[in-house]
Amino acid sequence: MLVSMRNTATREDVLRVVSTLQNRGIQAHVVREASRIVVVTNQSKIDGNDDKSLRLLPAVDSLINVTHRFKLASIQSRKQRTIVRAGDVEIGGETAVVIAGPCSVESREQLMAAARGVRDGGATMLRGGAYKPRTSPYEFQGLGAKGLKLLAEAREETGLPIVTEVMSTDDVEIVCEYADVLQVGARNMQNFALLRRLATVDKPVLLKRNPAATVEEWLLAAEYLLAGGNSNVILCERGIKGSGAETRNTFDIGAVALARQLTHLPVLADPSHATGRRDLVPALSRAALAAGADGLLLEVHPNPENALSDGAQSLNVAEFAKLMRGLAEPVRKVQVRAPAPLRHVSQRREIMHANQ
Amino acid sequence: MLVSMRNTATREDVLRVVSTLQNRGIQAHVVREASRIVVVTNQSKIDGNDDKSLRLLPAVDSLINVTHRFKLASIQSRKQRTIVRAGDVEIGGETAVVIAGPCSVESREQLMAAARGVRDGGATMLRGGAYKPRTSPYEFQGLGAKGLKLLAEAREETGLPIVTEVMSTDDVEIVCEYADVLQVGARNMQNFALLRRLATVDKPVLLKRNPAATVEEWLLAAEYLLAGGNSNVILCERGIKGSGAETRNTFDIGAVALARQLTHLPVLADPSHATGRRDLVPALSRAALAAGADGLLLEVHPNPENALSDGAQSLNVAEFAKLMRGLAEPVRKVQVRAPAPLRHVSQRREIMHANQ
Amino acid sequence: MLVSMRNTATREDVLRVVSTLQNRGIQAHVVREASRIVVVTNQSKIDGNDDKSLRLLPAVDSLINVTHRFKLASIQSRKQRTIVRAGDVEIGGETAVVIAGPCSVESREQLMAAARGVRDGGATMLRGGAYKPRTSPYEFQGLGAKGLKLLAEAREETGLPIVTEVMSTDDVEIVCEYADVLQVGARNMQNFALLRRLATVDKPVLLKRNPAATVEEWLLAAEYLLAGGNSNVILCERGIKGSGAETRNTFDIGAVALARQLTHLPVLADPSHATGRRDLVPALSRAALAAGADGLLLEVHPNPENALSDGAQSLNVAEFAKLMRGLAEPVRKVQVRAPAPLRHVSQRREIMHANQ
Amino acid sequence: MLVSMRNTATREDVLRVVSTLQNRGIQAHVVREASRIVVVTNQSKIDGNDDKSLRLLPAVDSLINVTHRFKLASIQSRKQRTIVRAGDVEIGGETAVVIAGPCSVESREQLMAAARGVRDGGATMLRGGAYKPRTSPYEFQGLGAKGLKLLAEAREETGLPIVTEVMSTDDVEIVCEYADVLQVGARNMQNFALLRRLATVDKPVLLKRNPAATVEEWLLAAEYLLAGGNSNVILCERGIKGSGAETRNTFDIGAVALARQLTHLPVLADPSHATGRRDLVPALSRAALAAGADGLLLEVHPNPENALSDGAQSLNVAEFAKLMRGLAEPVRKVQVRAPAPLRHVSQRREIMHANQ
Repeated sequence: MLVSMRNTATREDVLRVVSTLQNRGIQAHVVREASRIVVVTNQSKIDGNDDKSLRLLPAVDSLINVTHRFKLASIQSRKQRTIVRAGDVEIGGETAVVIAGPCSVESREQLMAAARGVRDGGATMLRGGAYKPRTSPYEFQGLGAKGLKLLAEAREETGLPIVTEVMSTDDVEIVCEYADVLQVGARNMQNFALLRRLATVDKPVLLKRNPAATVEEWLLAAEYLLAGGNSNVILCERGIKGSGAETRNTFDIGAVALARQLTHLPVLADPSHATGRRDLVPALSRAALAAGADGLLLEVHPNPENALSDGAQSLNVAEFAKLMRGLAEPVRKVQVRAPAPLRHVSQRREIMHANQ
Repeated sequence: MLVSMRNTATREDVLRVVSTLQNRGIQAHVVREASRIVVVTNQSKIDGNDDKSLRLLPAVDSLINVTHRFKLASIQSRKQRTIVRAGDVEIGGETAVVIAGPCSVESREQLMAAARGVRDGGATMLRGGAYKPRTSPYEFQGLGAKGLKLLAEAREETGLPIVTEVMSTDDVEIVCEYADVLQVGARNMQNFALLRRLATVDKPVLLKRNPAATVEEWLLAAEYLLAGGNSNVILCERGIKGSGAETRNTFDIGAVALARQLTHLPVLADPSHATGRRDLVPALSRAALAAGADGLLLEVHPNPENALSDGAQSLNVAEFAKLMRGLAEPVRKVQVRAPAPLRHVSQRREIMHANQ
Repeated sequence: MLVSMRNTATREDVLRVVSTLQNRGIQAHVVREASRIVVVTNQSKIDGNDDKSLRLLPAVDSLINVTHRFKLASIQSRKQRTIVRAGDVEIGGETAVVIAGPCSVESREQLMAAARGVRDGGATMLRGGAYKPRTSPYEFQGLGAKGLKLLAEAREETGLPIVTEVMSTDDVEIVCEYADVLQVGARNMQNFALLRRLATVDKPVLLKRNPAATVEEWLLAAEYLLAGGNSNVILCERGIKGSGAETRNTFDIGAVALARQLTHLPVLADPSHATGRRDLVPALSRAALAAGADGLLLEVHPNPENALSDGAQSLNVAEFAKLMRGLAEPVRKVQVRAPAPLRHVSQRREIMHANQ
Repeated sequence: MLVSMRNTATREDVLRVVSTLQNRGIQAHVVREASRIVVVTNQSKIDGNDDKSLRLLPAVDSLINVTHRFKLASIQSRKQRTIVRAGDVEIGGETAVVIAGPCSVESREQLMAAARGVRDGGATMLRGGAYKPRTSPYEFQGLGAKGLKLLAEAREETGLPIVTEVMSTDDVEIVCEYADVLQVGARNMQNFALLRRLATVDKPVLLKRNPAATVEEWLLAAEYLLAGGNSNVILCERGIKGSGAETRNTFDIGAVALARQLTHLPVLADPSHATGRRDLVPALSRAALAAGADGLLLEVHPNPENALSDGAQSLNVAEFAKLMRGLAEPVRKVQVRAPAPLRHVSQRREIMHANQ
């Protein structure tokens, strides 16, 4: 159960709600959002008597029952869908966003070619990694601060807001300085120290789903950000562990649809990581939007064959432009069959007899 | 490598090809299709000399290199997509098919209500199980022959061709008598005795993917049907084993897209079994078509709450009709962003300096 | 709930129990075992009044509450562990059994070399496939009836009872003629037509777990055999679908331990299929027995490099003998640490202060 | 390929090796271990000419080909198994270690009762979480620094070295102050910022496998520690994502055996997290040691029913003591069957004829 308070509430008003709850043995956690103050409790519902006395406290607006383990992330707690703003781009609104760019920032030439390519192809935002989580310590680890500066340069050139990954609490400050949206990678979805730190910044956070996480675990990770005070959270499905080696991961389209039901937060899809194969990216991009995704995260590289990371799943600039045009084309039609005229029952019976 | 021969080839012509291959230590397997005779070999490619002498043999039309383990199912072996016909319905053609109906045939009333409902909602074919594979021996096992007769009755009434499952070689004959398309359930995908028997019937076979099978294993199961002489094979993805309990299975949309690339056979999707939740079925139906599926297999019951099996994932008739109307609506738009005017390089440089 | 009746019960006695149950709306399913007649119901428990009147019926021995979905397979239904006999071998008794031999019977020479090798190495039974379920229709499909005859020959030579797979209801009769134990392969675990047929034979059945099945689904498949009248069922875990490509499957040792808790039936383990790598077979064989498995199923080939199937996971004869000797060796010791003398509390406090 | 140099090598000696490699386009990464200096390259093998000139450089001891992606963690790079020391306990030596204790440190009373209980039961080390990674932000997050102090107190009392988790780079310093071994939890296995920081401390690190990671990814995570200069790394398998809900995770016993083959580092097993069920812990503990694990990590709580976390999988003190005694008992015997006397060939033939 949440107690929603007006944002004009005083410190005393809030403390009165908290102590009223605690006197009844209910835990209370206060979150200040832009338009309201929410007191989150560890109870799904509240009984009648409690209800009345809480509602009458000063500045209390409403009590909201939330049965999900994730409270602020739950659609039960907020009727209208959250729209996250990055520069002049709205994520979660009527128009799907397309965030495209290279896996890693490798050089000025590479990044600018990618940035102009995706801008010309119709992307809404630019992605690119300066700090790269790599499975092996001997692989290219990203350009770091230099990469961030190149991203800012690309933003200047193209006007596209930038999304880039932050891997460590130590880097949050510098990444905030350059990025419009901070990405938490799949491996760090439950890096709670990082989530707690990002809950305190004033930049939106794009939270990728870990390949072994349930949707509930993913939304509870988002809850760390929301409960810490950052309500600008974007979710992104990027494939789970499957049983085959035919795709890098299994794109969990059901999770996209399910997350859209469970939360008011925007839900994106990353078909590049989900499959690891560029030939499948266009079909899955269409599928993700058809399932209700609020947008796409796509890897685009000016020269995928020479990419320092994730070349096999990166589109080149021309392929990206073609994919974008394809998103506007109509999907294969389902023709609604005109009802056939009913046949006489006697006719039907005869056939039945013949079959017996 | 396949040797494609004209269907006017004599027995001697074919034997000559086979013995030529065998003399070189190459296995040969002869398949008579409607429009050609194919000699399948266990080699991916053939070397130049072999090539020439084989091409010159009587009735040989062409040699086709196939690198996949599945030969006749491979798109390398047949350039145009296979269209399977059931009654007057084409599966794999321009229009997506929608096969809908109850999990089990339970009674005349239930089946007729479902059949009329899906016909009126726009379904192309009717599904319903007479022989039901059930996890427990103590659960309802289907009406058997009586169920088949009811299905035939429903076809008479609605004009919809029927799809129903066959679980055993012993039942193939009776199911062929009534059904337009024979379904092999996910549990029987690698029931090779059943596949070999179905390879010899003149009805199309709808082959569901086993939840633990790779796409290659699925297409090799189809190959049992094709190699045995039945070229009317329809594939159907119905979800794989995932890591969460939030959906019954994980709908592998990537497998739909991948199968469409690898084979010329029609590929359907079954979002009902893939998720086990009726609230996710509409979104995933849209996604499946957007990813290229040739149609849908949907569970519809006149009264899902009282269904003897799979109630939680069955739509009622009104929900089905709504889903069908929704398939025609446009997917969320991706607005192609107009390229922003280039800013001056000097401007960009200054910003970079400020950041350093 | 089960009603256990003495095996001297008359047909009337049984019918009286059944009709008493049915009058109360309870389903009843009668199973004749060697030592008792069991009436299986679809209720977990029975209330007090029903209890009394049922207990008083002629030939009723006891009422047994079973909360599991699998009834006859449940350990709740039978206090002592089932021992299955094959020739003079006991499966499920005090001594673990080792069933070893080649994946496929390929020739007399190969089979005899394998049979003598495993006999000399200490195996209790011989395994070998005459009918082979193969992923591709173009792969070696087994020698069929000829393979069965060779197995019988090998049994004559070595005295080892034989286990071999049956894939189809059509082959049940001939396989029964030769085999001591009939194996149902993992792909056929839910081939219910096959299970129903095997429920009627008087040979033990070895039921492998499907790689996508839960333990409950596996025990419910066993229930098809038990409910059909065959109480000589042996279970075998052989690996489930995992997330890595490093082993062919993931050996689910937890399922071995869990199945041993849930059922009275013998539980074997097949580390050869579970890993697909002969170098891991010895370690996992030891682990399986340590977890409580009643025995092992191992692939042994006189010349694994030339095996027609599953060479990579087959041990040669010398490796098998070494593995068998290793099973007798003690596992790495855990030294129980002698409790250290308690230190003075004052000492401890000082240290705490130093740390503060 | 690694270049192993004597630890008497000068800075110049090392630079000469590095520049020789770099002149040939080979990357070089220098690691100073206790007994040697290793220059890790990005090549599996080195050709003959390179080999000769490198071997002749001052202070070069040997060149070691390593085909694995993990270099220092690979058994190819070090012939003898690593023994990690914590207090007077050796991990990876002849005697298996048993690290036991509560999931979370909850209070002095709880921890002391657990610590004395596991000491008396025979544990070698004490575990307990002060910083707890919790799926929900509203759950108990651990006592933090206060918990560390209680752990140090318990060490004083029992003499057992302590293992505790560190979740964040910010906490590394304080955890190092108290703990004997620092644990990296499964969720943080690829928290590369944390790994890089822990590579620089002089305490051993226990690295749990992520439930979605391959063995290779796990060993590459260990490589981050080794390549950063911390060679005291202990691995711990704790279950992967499986397909069933019957156990919390799937204990990947094959990964224990595989890791023991691939690396010289000690490999522990955590059957508590692997199954989530205390009733399966004893069987899987035995299995883990039988498969070659160097020890166990077990959750023990004085009163599991009231545990603040992971109660269902925690043993109480008496159950732990019983498990420890059980580890010393012999596993079920496999009786090596005495070879049966050969029967006469004529006898065998007759039987074959009868069967034909």
